[in-house]
Amino acid sequence: MSSFVFTVGADALALRWPDGSVSTCPYVWLRDNCPSVLHPQTRERMFDLLSIPPDPRPRHVALADGLLVVTWAGEEHVSRFPLDWLARHRPGTRPADPADIPRVPWKGDFRIPRHDAAAILSDDGALAAWMADLARSGLAIVGGVADEVGAGSALAERIGFLRRTNFGITFEVVSRPDPNNLAYTAEHLPLHTDLPNQEIPPGFQFLHCLANAAEGGESMFADGIAIAEDLRAADPEAFRLLCTVPIPFRFHDAEADIAVHRPVLTPDDAGGIREIRYNAHIAGTFDMPAQLMADYYRAYRAFMTRTRQDRFVLSLRLAPGDMVAFDNRRTLHGRGRFHPNTGFRHLHGCYVDRGEFESRLRLLARHRPA
Amino acid sequence: MSSFVFTVGADALALRWPDGSVSTCPYVWLRDNCPSVLHPQTRERMFDLLSIPPDPRPRHVALADGLLVVTWAGEEHVSRFPLDWLARHRPGTRPADPADIPRVPWKGDFRIPRHDAAAILSDDGALAAWMADLARSGLAIVGGVADEVGAGSALAERIGFLRRTNFGITFEVVSRPDPNNLAYTAEHLPLHTDLPNQEIPPGFQFLHCLANAAEGGESMFADGIAIAEDLRAADPEAFRLLCTVPIPFRFHDAEADIAVHRPVLTPDDAGGIREIRYNAHIAGTFDMPAQLMADYYRAYRAFMTRTRQDRFVLSLRLAPGDMVAFDNRRTLHGRGRFHPNTGFRHLHGCYVDRGEFESRLRLLARHRPA
Repeated sequence: MSSFVFTVGADALALRWPDGSVSTCPYVWLRDNCPSVLHPQTRERMFDLLSIPPDPRPRHVALADGLLVVTWAGEEHVSRFPLDWLARHRPGTRPADPADIPRVPWKGDFRIPRHDAAAILSDDGALAAWMADLARSGLAIVGGVADEVGAGSALAERIGFLRRTNFGITFEVVSRPDPNNLAYTAEHLPLHTDLPNQEIPPGFQFLHCLANAAEGGESMFADGIAIAEDLRAADPEAFRLLCTVPIPFRFHDAEADIAVHRPVLTPDDAGGIREIRYNAHIAGTFDMPAQLMADYYRAYRAFMTRTRQDRFVLSLRLAPGDMVAFDNRRTLHGRGRFHPNTGFRHLHGCYVDRGEFESRLRLLARHRPA
Repeated sequence: MSSFVFTVGADALALRWPDGSVSTCPYVWLRDNCPSVLHPQTRERMFDLLSIPPDPRPRHVALADGLLVVTWAGEEHVSRFPLDWLARHRPGTRPADPADIPRVPWKGDFRIPRHDAAAILSDDGALAAWMADLARSGLAIVGGVADEVGAGSALAERIGFLRRTNFGITFEVVSRPDPNNLAYTAEHLPLHTDLPNQEIPPGFQFLHCLANAAEGGESMFADGIAIAEDLRAADPEAFRLLCTVPIPFRFHDAEADIAVHRPVLTPDDAGGIREIRYNAHIAGTFDMPAQLMADYYRAYRAFMTRTRQDRFVLSLRLAPGDMVAFDNRRTLHGRGRFHPNTGFRHLHGCYVDRGEFESRLRLLARHRPA
């Protein structure tokens, strides 16, 4: 660390690191992050920001024993910052996060990664590899799942606890005599995301195929991010409307009436797409101003049109023992109409939310061999 | 309905209602909402928007038997709209929603509404009245709760199923020898919202007081909306920074590592505030650009300062048998330091999310006598 240099400025300390990079550390930020402020057991912040003046200034700054030692003016307080903490925390950059796995868009020719149920159940490395594929592509298949209800959700629970919804903690996708949802019929289900009518639609979805003997019922998938980015490039105004105009989504039956207004596309801080809500069969009656409607319908149709194009859509037939897992806020899923009189079709489904998913990635990274 | 008049325009039908108001119904919107498109059982939309041309036009429009009958040009299709449907669905306005109860801001002199546990358990009207107070004020107390663990969460479950988090489905607020969270110590807990480190912090929180014999430990509450609106009026730039600059929130222990970047204030579509994330003890190290920090800290301190002012904060001592319920994304809560050697203090807590809350309001409104 011989070439580490600090410069005491008017409002901030400038640090020059051995690799030549510079970080700027405002004094108020340094004072707020004095390492002495964490609760010894909970590691939560005990410091009261209002206990110090709004503009703390250093009286003395020194480098000693690998620590940056700041003695504050006007108060009896000394802060000792480990250099590796300062190297990890540089204003203007987010610290590395093992849950931050870049998404790679895919199209209709995507080869879905396959993983093995037994390995995921017994080995954290196999779990991490499956989750990394899910984070990257938003779609993966697990083979060799035991032929029993609960075998699929046991795999999902390796990631985190299940997200309960008005359909329960788990759900059975079968054709029912008295359906409250198109999934529970034998109808064609166009590509969609589940539960866009929720404040936060479920993060990841898991569908374990227990039986698929009926004619028809092939599964279809498309990467909503690839579709949205294609639309952004081809028609920026349509993309903008889908990002900004809230539309109503609603599900209601005897037990629930869950509704929100949200845009189809929700951007993230970095200019990408945080989540997609696309589900033509539970979209409500559009209620934007009349003068917006012609343009909005054009934009919506432009997105919808892409969900029917072979360049974006892949289809496959799930076999008993397969479980498909996908990012429900990114990957659109659907199925062809099937013929319940020709055989039984049964998927067992559940959800795990994004928060639990990311938490597990961080925990797995703690124990990963370097 | 004698003075109902429709005018066939180039792109839209104009409707003049008996009260003189006018609604504009673009043809593409009318065609998309033809009442024949709903699944008979699920009431979900079966219509494929791409099955019609992008610009449908009427060949003939007539009023017959209280229905607006539109015969479409170029396709063999007739749509029959009930007038009351058209009256409820007017482009540019959202249909009335029983869950949309206006929030009324309050300050430190607020008299918290009280409700009765037995009534809520047995009577839907009492349940609706309690929920209306919670929606309006974000804070209410239920008295007469049975002296047993689970009596409070049974009241919460009258609203909807409980939100599970990394702390469980329910949680016990007691001083513990090995806490993973400041709530589980005897420390002073400054005003905060719970779990801002989650993608969606829990909607409503319920704390049932089973014992409160320790010295200290008074409960404190403040209306985060009142504070935010006061800040908006006094310092619009500070308000803007709190609405737009994401800051890190993180909780991590042996079992979980849950983190997001989000602004303290999340605006809603109408210019109000959808949710507040304010929790100084699990805010992480700020990582916005250095040149933003001085202004951001000033804005953050301006919010924080208000959370200490008597004009905003009320305090009270919960008695055994009381349950406090509050909107966790609006109402800040805290407690004074208590002295565990002087007596036992025990709160039993749980959460119900906003989606379930609003769903229950809609279901209750279905059965309400007119």
